[in-house]
Amino acid sequence: MTVWEGKRFTVTVEDGYEIARTPDAVAIVALDGDGRFVLVRQRRPAADAELLELPAGLVDDGEAPLETAKRELREETGLQGGTWRELAGFWSSPGFVDEYVTVFAADALDEGEPDLDEGEELEVVRWTRAEVEARVGELRDATTLVGLLLFLRSR
Amino acid sequence: MTVWEGKRFTVTVEDGYEIARTPDAVAIVALDGDGRFVLVRQRRPAADAELLELPAGLVDDGEAPLETAKRELREETGLQGGTWRELAGFWSSPGFVDEYVTVFAADALDEGEPDLDEGEELEVVRWTRAEVEARVGELRDATTLVGLLLFLRSR
Repeated sequence: MTVWEGKRFTVTVEDGYEIARTPDAVAIVALDGDGRFVLVRQRRPAADAELLELPAGLVDDGEAPLETAKRELREETGLQGGTWRELAGFWSSPGFVDEYVTVFAADALDEGEPDLDEGEELEVVRWTRAEVEARVGELRDATTLVGLLLFLRSR
Repeated sequence: MTVWEGKRFTVTVEDGYEIARTPDAVAIVALDGDGRFVLVRQRRPAADAELLELPAGLVDDGEAPLETAKRELREETGLQGGTWRELAGFWSSPGFVDEYVTVFAADALDEGEPDLDEGEELEVVRWTRAEVEARVGELRDATTLVGLLLFLRSR
């Protein structure tokens, strides 16, 4: 039963379990043409903090997650083209949220112009692999940690 | 402004941002006296799946996260004592959830009797380090992935 309905998410109660229902999400471990990791820094009101994260976004109805990932990466950073593979899939907080996140890895990306949504403000930050290896533990977003840690193990 | 209030979480809208507000959480990378990793398998209605996860729980009002972690580990698995350290802290889904998760690592734990909450059903599963190394990519809970991946890097 739906007990609250917003624009970003909805709340249902099923068999006594309160569940926050949200579109599925994607995130991208993106490497530019120089092999640098491309991250985005943005203010997150829910965390009351500015977080450095993988480029990410929500899957539109009927959209394949890989298409979402390519669209969001291009909108947020301008990066496009490149070689893509699926890296991981997981629930972000399955105790009460139905959000499933698919993380892709993309490398050898070409530069382009970002195309941010109205009101979207973010700073693009690029880290070398050595910086990621040294500083991954400083990051504070679960999806970003999973994506980068799995990527580092994969090669 | 609070727009919906449940037992497990609450929804507020601030400056147009819809936020699911929940107690902070803890999880534990727990190693038994034989150096095996102790995981719990349980049904997660929000994911509509049975997930293998780190032992975890929610911080009670006024409780220190380390105390929550020791209490939850003992309740879910019976394990107690041992040597503890903080391993990581992160937001699970900062796009719309305020949940901050602290992960502890505990080793050389002593066996004891679990003490599950009424209605709580879980299966305790123990993996060797070699199994964790080989199978961590199969896991589907973000906090579990972050905790195990950071632990594997830390030694």
